[in-house]
Amino acid sequence: MALTMVFGPLQGAYAQDTEKAGKGIDIQKVVPEGKLPGQQLPYYIRNGEGERYLVGGMVAALIARGEDTGEHFEAAILTGGKNASFPLHTHARSHEALYILDGEVELWLGGQHYLMIRGDYASIPQGTPHAFKMLGHRTQILSWNTGKEIGPIYKTLGQPFAGYVQPEKVNPDISKELLKKAEASADVRFESKAPSKSTPQRVRNGVVPDKKVPYVLASGEGQRLVAGDQLFSFLGDQQVSDGKFIAVMTEGPAGPMIPAHYHEKHTENFFCLDGSMTMRVNNETLTMYPGDFAHVPARTIHAYQLNNHYTRFIGFLTPGLFEPFFRTLGDKYDGYVYPQKPYPFRFDRVLSKLNELDLKVLEAPAAQK
Amino acid sequence: MALTMVFGPLQGAYAQDTEKAGKGIDIQKVVPEGKLPGQQLPYYIRNGEGERYLVGGMVAALIARGEDTGEHFEAAILTGGKNASFPLHTHARSHEALYILDGEVELWLGGQHYLMIRGDYASIPQGTPHAFKMLGHRTQILSWNTGKEIGPIYKTLGQPFAGYVQPEKVNPDISKELLKKAEASADVRFESKAPSKSTPQRVRNGVVPDKKVPYVLASGEGQRLVAGDQLFSFLGDQQVSDGKFIAVMTEGPAGPMIPAHYHEKHTENFFCLDGSMTMRVNNETLTMYPGDFAHVPARTIHAYQLNNHYTRFIGFLTPGLFEPFFRTLGDKYDGYVYPQKPYPFRFDRVLSKLNELDLKVLEAPAAQK
Repeated sequence: MALTMVFGPLQGAYAQDTEKAGKGIDIQKVVPEGKLPGQQLPYYIRNGEGERYLVGGMVAALIARGEDTGEHFEAAILTGGKNASFPLHTHARSHEALYILDGEVELWLGGQHYLMIRGDYASIPQGTPHAFKMLGHRTQILSWNTGKEIGPIYKTLGQPFAGYVQPEKVNPDISKELLKKAEASADVRFESKAPSKSTPQRVRNGVVPDKKVPYVLASGEGQRLVAGDQLFSFLGDQQVSDGKFIAVMTEGPAGPMIPAHYHEKHTENFFCLDGSMTMRVNNETLTMYPGDFAHVPARTIHAYQLNNHYTRFIGFLTPGLFEPFFRTLGDKYDGYVYPQKPYPFRFDRVLSKLNELDLKVLEAPAAQK
Repeated sequence: MALTMVFGPLQGAYAQDTEKAGKGIDIQKVVPEGKLPGQQLPYYIRNGEGERYLVGGMVAALIARGEDTGEHFEAAILTGGKNASFPLHTHARSHEALYILDGEVELWLGGQHYLMIRGDYASIPQGTPHAFKMLGHRTQILSWNTGKEIGPIYKTLGQPFAGYVQPEKVNPDISKELLKKAEASADVRFESKAPSKSTPQRVRNGVVPDKKVPYVLASGEGQRLVAGDQLFSFLGDQQVSDGKFIAVMTEGPAGPMIPAHYHEKHTENFFCLDGSMTMRVNNETLTMYPGDFAHVPARTIHAYQLNNHYTRFIGFLTPGLFEPFFRTLGDKYDGYVYPQKPYPFRFDRVLSKLNELDLKVLEAPAAQK
């Protein structure tokens, strides 16, 4: 399919670059709603959907498996009630990140014991003992992992499950026999001891460390940049994951579609948290609402538009090489909410470094108001 | 407009009742999106919209004013960042309820000091001193009040504001002069003392009191009933507000539209929290997403349908007289999440008491799966 069929005639200075940029790109079809593709293709999953298992009193909905992402990463949504839990364990090869979507969670992380709520984030490098327990009647966690060896834990420990919420009566205990089996089939080692009975501390940290160590981050914190009317916050940058991934929060008001573009090297993943957004993914246009997820592999043409007065999404980008794009485009920002008056959208800074930044742009940005 | 034009031909045993029930009802037009009607008409407000003021470091978006609700109630969405606050005060005539939508809030309530998160609820009867302070960078509270004398507080203390989020730099202090002015024009009396510096306690309470006293309720708690596949939780029942209002949480999976109906005496208000729902309001069909609000006055034909695998909305019904409907229809339920297998939908229990329950039904329920 010709690019102009998808995006309309190209304009001005962009036309030449774009014709070149788009040459030879295979515009793949987006996988139909609710399907995990089983190979690396663009796809999306609506709130609640996914490959579901009942494990530890929770519903684990796998929204990305290794086979869906070129083995770059996996993601699961864990939904449970009070006392649903996961015992103390360590991953040898997988770097995990947790983002709390709802409710309240006790997290044991490398000797610390935290109380987490919606918006709090945890980075769990390889080799870090961790465990969690849900405290709210409706608790939901987004778990993101590098590689392909975490999803099999849920498959081994759990039972396939057709429901979308945990049963009202469920035993959160997992047998030792199953734990052993999981250790044999996935990247997990369970600790024999129970997590400490100390009093959990509310997450208040606002600093992303300068090296790969376990850390938590309070909701809204992270290294912040602004471009136009959007606020970008790094919850995890390249240096805390050895370049494996970056985690970026984006928030802003309703605005125009950003320019359609693609990346040669890295995969982008969008998880909508507040408001709604329109996503262009190759030849499809999706409207995403809170809880919806879109997987955009390298060489997928895409763009997004924020639709509501307050729209927020978390992006996981892997491998972690796109941080310089945000740092080039954005201005440092001390605020914790998108600016009342948009900053300049300095796309000019980016245009001269497109290859270096892993960016192929197919359109000019919308004129700024 | 004939009822059959709106709802299609009536079926079976309902047809006769319905023709009678709908006779003479004035099918009012729904007010266009984003408009507060200034008189009691059905209307809806999208997430973020409303009449907005900047006050105490927060954006107060009035989504229902006394003049929009027949002076039954008012509602506002308060959006702010860390340290936005409201000083210690008392309402002599207005009963207030707070529901936390996002972030973290310190609430001082009649000598107690609480830490509240998303889903926690507080009931604040007349004469109860209270104050709050926001702790999260993105904190949002739904404030619901009986009567018409609370909205003017925001108008007096604040400035009209075109934005949707708080400015990144904002002074949360309100001058004593303005506080005095508010006391003269609205139902508020400010206390001269500051709230206590005690350590706030996380809200863990699960019991709604048996009389009108101040209380808080942890997310997911309340007196629970189930009907079909939906879970109803009373956050506030008739006895805790002297019959002024009830607050009911509804959650469930995607399902059919409930039967179209209307009420002669009470007004219903729907605030979507999770997932999405379709609302029929007279001759309009709306899709509601988290943060959207619909006001359905008495004698407005309406019905709702839950669209997502986990959909949740909070309803405020005033005056508080519809509690017996839920108690007649529903079965007592110990769980905290909607049932995996639907319970019987015992509409038959309701049909013989329609007048007593303030219910005029225009359709038969969908056949149960």
